[in-house]
Amino acid sequence: MKLLRVGTVGTERPALLDESGTLRDLSGLVPDIDGALLADEGELARIRTAAASGELPRLDAAGLRTGPPVARIGKIVCIGLNYHDHARETGAETPAEPILFMKAPDTVVGPDDTVLVPRDSRKTDWEVELAVVIGRTARYLETDAQALAAVAGYAVAHDVSERAFQIERGGQWDKGKNCETFNPLGPWLVTADEVPDPQNLGLRLWVNGELKQDGTTAEQIFPVAEVVRYVSRFMTLYPGDVINTGTPAGVAMGHPEPKPYLRAGDVVELEIDGLGRQRQTLRSA
Amino acid sequence: MKLLRVGTVGTERPALLDESGTLRDLSGLVPDIDGALLADEGELARIRTAAASGELPRLDAAGLRTGPPVARIGKIVCIGLNYHDHARETGAETPAEPILFMKAPDTVVGPDDTVLVPRDSRKTDWEVELAVVIGRTARYLETDAQALAAVAGYAVAHDVSERAFQIERGGQWDKGKNCETFNPLGPWLVTADEVPDPQNLGLRLWVNGELKQDGTTAEQIFPVAEVVRYVSRFMTLYPGDVINTGTPAGVAMGHPEPKPYLRAGDVVELEIDGLGRQRQTLRSA
Repeated sequence: MKLLRVGTVGTERPALLDESGTLRDLSGLVPDIDGALLADEGELARIRTAAASGELPRLDAAGLRTGPPVARIGKIVCIGLNYHDHARETGAETPAEPILFMKAPDTVVGPDDTVLVPRDSRKTDWEVELAVVIGRTARYLETDAQALAAVAGYAVAHDVSERAFQIERGGQWDKGKNCETFNPLGPWLVTADEVPDPQNLGLRLWVNGELKQDGTTAEQIFPVAEVVRYVSRFMTLYPGDVINTGTPAGVAMGHPEPKPYLRAGDVVELEIDGLGRQRQTLRSA
Repeated sequence: MKLLRVGTVGTERPALLDESGTLRDLSGLVPDIDGALLADEGELARIRTAAASGELPRLDAAGLRTGPPVARIGKIVCIGLNYHDHARETGAETPAEPILFMKAPDTVVGPDDTVLVPRDSRKTDWEVELAVVIGRTARYLETDAQALAAVAGYAVAHDVSERAFQIERGGQWDKGKNCETFNPLGPWLVTADEVPDPQNLGLRLWVNGELKQDGTTAEQIFPVAEVVRYVSRFMTLYPGDVINTGTPAGVAMGHPEPKPYLRAGDVVELEIDGLGRQRQTLRSA
């Protein structure tokens, strides 16, 4: 299923994009799409049955904003340097184990919402990423099968990053990863049953129409199952948590000088096979 | 005012510790203590008036668990190496600007709840910290006065840390800061009007009755006002967010070998002048 949330900021309603591409209202069926729903197999089955019946009310998509597909995200864990090609372009060594950092849930916006270039920013950069949405509590998992069973679904994430804040301002990457609007998510949460192989997804990102990233999750150093298992040994993952699994090559930082960092007015588009497409215009904060 | 939340995990009710030390029930007055309440000066004034009237119902404190004093925390921003004496003991240089890292809100437990030593942990360490609770949205603040006006109050935080996970496992500190139960908070949120000088508070921590940390916020490299102002230029702070402002000298990592890292069965007690006292027993995860 493709689950999403549509409406103005803070008043989004749950919806479903059915197999014919018709937008269907779920608000009569469930209160919202969040960790509680994703953990509830009975509720998900009820949505599935209602979708199959074809009787869910249609929603008119025209002019309707798409919000992030998950409400009340608990935490966002991010994996750094998780693609062979991206590690090479940054000049970093291939990590021996996953690098973890965090984004606050309040950085999440809808897939087509405005992204703000922070004040005093000189190095705002793009990163298309496969986001994993957790549906089952994951704590000290032992096997890949347990890890994949904890995944509710997948979505497109834009892990917007300010490289000077991240790397040149003393210490930890989080400083350049948590500016407001820095995590567009969506358009959809595609349930895991519809993503048979998360290690075979093409990811692409364009800036002002020019293709900048054109990668595949086959290049991930630590695949999704290993990432979920690994993270669960350092922190407990709860339904509604999100993992951004890293970005392939092609970020601004990886370009020769002068590096083409983002500025107000730029348009970034990104997509992942089967998970939909985002489009953001940048503005000054 | 001293605001707190009492009851079993997940069903805490809002309460107030009045000037005579009597526990008073606020659940007839406000639904909970969270960012929405802390941002609402009218509601806070209503609590103040009710407290002054002496007519709030008494609560029997006997056998009542104290939860974290703030519900629905949005994010926890932590300041690394923010005390001159702690920077010295770790062998680090004094930071030129604040080091930021993050803890997930799901690491927060009550002040006397069990703390779990993670599996495979060899270096679980303690850190008593002054926590700042935000009451007003803080975004690109310019002045110390604006920064202090954004502070709803203060609390004791225990920034439990696994040093091997934090430092020896590739990359970013967050990996050793986000284990479950790693952020006891409370017992109280003391409103900012009752903490006239946040830079003159003694902080102490004992392990199994032995005093390990005995510091003062006067040793902070970046004082509270500067921390809030600084953070607000990299991320937006919202009501209900928390900043852990760093720890003074005396952590296990700062001891000579063999360093006395925490083990199951250890008891940690910590307190800050005027903000109350915590006591945790450690168990194995």
